[in-house]
Amino acid sequence: MTSPAAFRQVAILGLGLIGSSIARAVRDRMPDIRVTGFDSDAATRATARRLAIAHDIPDQMAAAVADADLIILCVPVGAMGPVAQDLAGHIRADAVISDVGSSKASVLTALQAALPHHHVIPAHPVAGTERSGPEAGFAALFHNRWCIITPPEGADEAKVMQLSAFWEAMGANVERMDAQHHDLVLAVTSHLPHLIAYTIVGTASDLESVTRSEVIKYSAGGFRDFTRIAASDPTMWRDVFLSNKDAVLEMLQRFSEDLTALQRAIRWGDGDALFDLFSRTRAIRRSIIEEGQDDARPDFGRSDH
Amino acid sequence: MTSPAAFRQVAILGLGLIGSSIARAVRDRMPDIRVTGFDSDAATRATARRLAIAHDIPDQMAAAVADADLIILCVPVGAMGPVAQDLAGHIRADAVISDVGSSKASVLTALQAALPHHHVIPAHPVAGTERSGPEAGFAALFHNRWCIITPPEGADEAKVMQLSAFWEAMGANVERMDAQHHDLVLAVTSHLPHLIAYTIVGTASDLESVTRSEVIKYSAGGFRDFTRIAASDPTMWRDVFLSNKDAVLEMLQRFSEDLTALQRAIRWGDGDALFDLFSRTRAIRRSIIEEGQDDARPDFGRSDH
Repeated sequence: MTSPAAFRQVAILGLGLIGSSIARAVRDRMPDIRVTGFDSDAATRATARRLAIAHDIPDQMAAAVADADLIILCVPVGAMGPVAQDLAGHIRADAVISDVGSSKASVLTALQAALPHHHVIPAHPVAGTERSGPEAGFAALFHNRWCIITPPEGADEAKVMQLSAFWEAMGANVERMDAQHHDLVLAVTSHLPHLIAYTIVGTASDLESVTRSEVIKYSAGGFRDFTRIAASDPTMWRDVFLSNKDAVLEMLQRFSEDLTALQRAIRWGDGDALFDLFSRTRAIRRSIIEEGQDDARPDFGRSDH
Repeated sequence: MTSPAAFRQVAILGLGLIGSSIARAVRDRMPDIRVTGFDSDAATRATARRLAIAHDIPDQMAAAVADADLIILCVPVGAMGPVAQDLAGHIRADAVISDVGSSKASVLTALQAALPHHHVIPAHPVAGTERSGPEAGFAALFHNRWCIITPPEGADEAKVMQLSAFWEAMGANVERMDAQHHDLVLAVTSHLPHLIAYTIVGTASDLESVTRSEVIKYSAGGFRDFTRIAASDPTMWRDVFLSNKDAVLEMLQRFSEDLTALQRAIRWGDGDALFDLFSRTRAIRRSIIEEGQDDARPDFGRSDH
């Protein structure tokens, strides 16, 4: 079997953390591919030009996408549809339209509605940090992380292989999944954790009995890990929760039931129930370390020992 | 004002992560102090002897504490009372009895009931990792972390100053607080985060629609940070929740209300409510970084860039 043809020009729309990381990774690892970029924010375009993360960052989106055979939308999930609509009439007929959104079923629907005659193949690199903007990006962001590709039924297999090879060349491990299943999996591994982190940080900052400066001062007891997640981009996450509503609400319902059961165990002094759960959760951590999805150093190596 | 007299011998009871870290820190930073240790588990005593973290680790607790002028109980909160009862009759009349427990009001009551005529001065170094046992300890664990001392009413001021100086010599910043207030503050900065982390890891491992291996595989989306906290010592945390029940239940109630409000915002598509909260929580993160209570590197420096 021959390896799939490489793309010749990739256009990246949205030059934030993810978009700028893709641009850097392509320039690092696939120097033959021409990289163009666009961001609706002029200041972001200027920063991206200064960082030289792409060969060309024109002031008009149409100029960035005209010759591209791969167009990746790196905008908040709620903006995918409108951006795709703006593309219509400006792109090649054989171009692959992909994205990096954290929810996939709603994005697939929006992209296909806007570009019904194009090759729409959504994707989601499961990687990121709590930072935003073109300066936050780095080429190794996708290294040894999963990229989930969710091709619609009837997708052109050669194009899907081409997109898979592209992500593998950036160091990612590619997995294919149905968009609906992706949304369920990510609801529990990513969306619910973010929602809970945002909530607890909000709860902690609204207390009367404990001051905000005390919360900050003693955050090393566990709270600080939640604040990292709760510092993620507000627009991106608002859109994720609204676009993956059903799966998020389903997971949230289960979480609330489990929390109520623990609350009851505490109220009634049922130490065995607490101990059983707390022992069970240790095993999951071990598996994550073993699979290389986290760092085993205690405290992520934060402590200076 | 003269600086408080140094302790001459510190006895550490319980040689896990915290106890063994104290032993190492004392030997590193206060070489004139004699360190004795004891653990009820013979294997732990053997490991601690092999690591040479103390001058003497006898097989009987009485031998470890007989000459100590500072005795620090580093055992789960629920074991503080029984251990203190075993000390009675074996310790010096002028010895300071302290501890490192994560809840303070119940520990103060238990220690004072067991040793009514001794200098009981509880303390809580707000530091730790998810690891357990004597091999997990390290001397720098308390460096630039807070240690909260909660002296009871009528405590001997000279002894309180002596204990404060001891913790400062280990690199900690010392703060005094009322035991009840400590328990409220830690309920939100430490106990609630742990409870929530344990819950979500349990919820995620009990799904039918998403397999456990998928949860592990895609954990980099946020879930993995919770698994680190949820890998903490089960016995220690069972005791914390049971001993700080009222404050934990109060914080849990507030958290649940806030989560319900967010759930409602998602269900009704109220993007503004989501955006407002998500923007507010970013500021807290910034303050924690500024105060040196966390590492500003994205992903705690986990990514290899």
